[in-house]
Amino acid sequence: MLFHVRMDVCIPHDVPAETAMKLKADEKTRFQQLQRSGQWRHIWRIVGQYSNVSVFDVASGSELHDLLLSLPLFPYMEITVMPLCRHPSSLHDDDR
Amino acid sequence: MLFHVRMDVCIPHDVPAETAMKLKADEKTRFQQLQRSGQWRHIWRIVGQYSNVSVFDVASGSELHDLLLSLPLFPYMEITVMPLCRHPSSLHDDDR
Amino acid sequence: MLFHVRMDVCIPHDVPAETAMKLKADEKTRFQQLQRSGQWRHIWRIVGQYSNVSVFDVASGSELHDLLLSLPLFPYMEITVMPLCRHPSSLHDDDR
Amino acid sequence: MLFHVRMDVCIPHDVPAETAMKLKADEKTRFQQLQRSGQWRHIWRIVGQYSNVSVFDVASGSELHDLLLSLPLFPYMEITVMPLCRHPSSLHDDDR
Amino acid sequence: MLFHVRMDVCIPHDVPAETAMKLKADEKTRFQQLQRSGQWRHIWRIVGQYSNVSVFDVASGSELHDLLLSLPLFPYMEITVMPLCRHPSSLHDDDR
Amino acid sequence: MLFHVRMDVCIPHDVPAETAMKLKADEKTRFQQLQRSGQWRHIWRIVGQYSNVSVFDVASGSELHDLLLSLPLFPYMEITVMPLCRHPSSLHDDDR
Amino acid sequence: MLFHVRMDVCIPHDVPAETAMKLKADEKTRFQQLQRSGQWRHIWRIVGQYSNVSVFDVASGSELHDLLLSLPLFPYMEITVMPLCRHPSSLHDDDR
Amino acid sequence: MLFHVRMDVCIPHDVPAETAMKLKADEKTRFQQLQRSGQWRHIWRIVGQYSNVSVFDVASGSELHDLLLSLPLFPYMEITVMPLCRHPSSLHDDDR
Amino acid sequence: MLFHVRMDVCIPHDVPAETAMKLKADEKTRFQQLQRSGQWRHIWRIVGQYSNVSVFDVASGSELHDLLLSLPLFPYMEITVMPLCRHPSSLHDDDR
Amino acid sequence: MLFHVRMDVCIPHDVPAETAMKLKADEKTRFQQLQRSGQWRHIWRIVGQYSNVSVFDVASGSELHDLLLSLPLFPYMEITVMPLCRHPSSLHDDDR
Repeated sequence: MLFHVRMDVCIPHDVPAETAMKLKADEKTRFQQLQRSGQWRHIWRIVGQYSNVSVFDVASGSELHDLLLSLPLFPYMEITVMPLCRHPSSLHDDDR
Repeated sequence: MLFHVRMDVCIPHDVPAETAMKLKADEKTRFQQLQRSGQWRHIWRIVGQYSNVSVFDVASGSELHDLLLSLPLFPYMEITVMPLCRHPSSLHDDDR
Repeated sequence: MLFHVRMDVCIPHDVPAETAMKLKADEKTRFQQLQRSGQWRHIWRIVGQYSNVSVFDVASGSELHDLLLSLPLFPYMEITVMPLCRHPSSLHDDDR
Repeated sequence: MLFHVRMDVCIPHDVPAETAMKLKADEKTRFQQLQRSGQWRHIWRIVGQYSNVSVFDVASGSELHDLLLSLPLFPYMEITVMPLCRHPSSLHDDDR
Repeated sequence: MLFHVRMDVCIPHDVPAETAMKLKADEKTRFQQLQRSGQWRHIWRIVGQYSNVSVFDVASGSELHDLLLSLPLFPYMEITVMPLCRHPSSLHDDDR
Repeated sequence: MLFHVRMDVCIPHDVPAETAMKLKADEKTRFQQLQRSGQWRHIWRIVGQYSNVSVFDVASGSELHDLLLSLPLFPYMEITVMPLCRHPSSLHDDDR
Repeated sequence: MLFHVRMDVCIPHDVPAETAMKLKADEKTRFQQLQRSGQWRHIWRIVGQYSNVSVFDVASGSELHDLLLSLPLFPYMEITVMPLCRHPSSLHDDDR
Repeated sequence: MLFHVRMDVCIPHDVPAETAMKLKADEKTRFQQLQRSGQWRHIWRIVGQYSNVSVFDVASGSELHDLLLSLPLFPYMEITVMPLCRHPSSLHDDDR
Repeated sequence: MLFHVRMDVCIPHDVPAETAMKLKADEKTRFQQLQRSGQWRHIWRIVGQYSNVSVFDVASGSELHDLLLSLPLFPYMEITVMPLCRHPSSLHDDDR
Repeated sequence: MLFHVRMDVCIPHDVPAETAMKLKADEKTRFQQLQRSGQWRHIWRIVGQYSNVSVFDVASGSELHDLLLSLPLFPYMEITVMPLCRHPSSLHDDDR
């Protein structure tokens, strides 16, 4: 199943710089695991924002929830989730 | 350049059924041209909505504007455009 | 998979009364099919609104999309979909 | 009487970790009392959010207000309440 | 049980004047029945709006829903419902 | 003159507990003075919120402003004011 | 008593031109009566909008409500009302 | 004086095609007059919208209001106006 | 030129009481200078809010910007500016 | 490519004054580099706000993203980006 996820990151300015840097490094590692596994199928930066637009390919909503909760930056992100499905006009059998 | 585009279609209920059907057929034809050319790179339905989320891959904002205006359903769509760029954490050199 | 769906119905006042009554009767029939099949698991009226809050239990987002599109009142409804999952504190193994 | 309640939890990042953990443990205990008593009839997680959607079955609005105020996380939650009633098309006599 | 209800009336300008006048007269009759029965406990005009703020005193949410649906202007009103309860600081035992 | 006032209380979590308790006790005392004088004519809790809906009966907007500013919790409340007037359909001469 | 009133006019494009012109002429006549009487104390156009910002000086909210209802364009206006009072820092005893 | 103006055009679908085309041609003529006079200093299309972002250079708010009202598409546009001034960091003496 | 300005003051609760009192005294002094000069032409309190609605009479947007920036409470205010002009129906030649 | 960018600056009041002054001086230096290079083509202050409206002329969305991230005040700004293109009615071949 495909989900469209937007993540807006906002780390409060009184979080110490090292803590923030550590969080971002851990986030990158976790992200790359999920990109390699194919669950985090697409990711793009939104121009001018500390935000991304992503597409996840997972077995269920529960699996997506567990993945998102496992992100080190989860406590500092506003997350918006929209379930997607194949578009009937598409020429491709399997748009992911 | 990549752009994230959301289209929400709303055909007023007093548009005659044949007109609406013709518009949708023309839209599908035009969409498939743009999908084949690679300019309309991704499309997904949003579950429960007469809406899509798409990613366009075009040379400029002007090219995108001309493509969107050429859509037969343009007068009946609310369109939201966000410029995208590559995410710095991505393992892929060229995320499109 | 579980989805939380809110439907706000708005039939324009210039739709003829018989057409509206027919639509509502068809909607009821279709709803009861889906309630019997277990896919439309819960439904409640929101007090004072021509709206419902529902929980669907389906195999995927695509199945939900097809069910919603099959509703006779679909063109006259604003629909909001939220994917749900089991709450970790629940005493029940299978909250549906 | 049935009420639809959405709770969005937001514990500020400067609340000490132990305090937060204690609050969550107490919340879980209180929740399970209310689930056992049948007053907190349904609960689901919203995918990707530290939020739940719930249905309460109580004698009155006052009873609901007292239950919600008794939750340890009450000061850290944004709560939205909608009164519900039986849907006239339902095949069941008693949808709860 | 007490409910706070706001009603914003909007009769489209192409409804014939006699139909509108008839609707308003019927609304007034129905309102006065409910005011006499004590179910429609308070009503005030909001200055400058074709709107009212009301307090209903009913046995349940279902009873309120049925009352609101019985209003002749229901199809032309946007209705907002909030359940109320006694304020703990009040000097009165029974604030209605 | 009648005014509809909604007050949403939000005491920041870093205000010391005793300060908060003192503020609430003072608020209650002041509220009861104004309830006795008849200026604070109605008050109700909104179910699930640390908020009230009230009706004030005062000589002018200036009098209301001075009353609201005199509330100990004023700095911690979001206040919304709507002027009210008698509803023309009411059976009562003097709805307050 | 002083009230701040914003009026946004929106005459639907299918109202016949003569009807609209008649409404506007009647509105102007009524406005000038109220300006002469001193009840409609200030009026300004908002640049680029078919809207005005006004200050009314009336005995009560009821008087304001009756004045606004008497405006020929009332059915085509969205009206926002805010009660005002004298600012404590003002050098003038009577700011109107 | 400089003003930032955004115009969102929305011609209802039941306006006859010739009327719409005539309106657009007249709008273009009027726009070019104002561009030549230097009053309509900048104009850009917003990608994907039937909207423009413009900068006007006029003697006063009144002059701007009269210009905007003189636009043939004025009745079909939502207009947002923001007054601008020179930015203190700019290297240019006269940013227009 | 006339501008409509709304100022909503919000001094964070951790600003020391003396600092806040000093800011308010300085604000009052500066306000009265501008009221005497005729640039701050009108000011009113909004009932129930720590906010004012004002009308400024200045030579340009730049002059207004400099005046607003010179206010001691500027860093603690949310400010909304709307350019105004004379209303064509007004009986007065010079509404300020 | 042209982009319309609005930046709203909000430096929290507990950032030390020297830090804030240093940030603003660095921001000014960086801005002037980009103004000289022609990438930051237009900038205006919005009257009454600590905000600017700007037009950037860059090769791509990625270039814009990198420029915005390089701004010393980036962590304290809310940024809104809209892609622009030439307006078809413009008399100029190259509106920048």
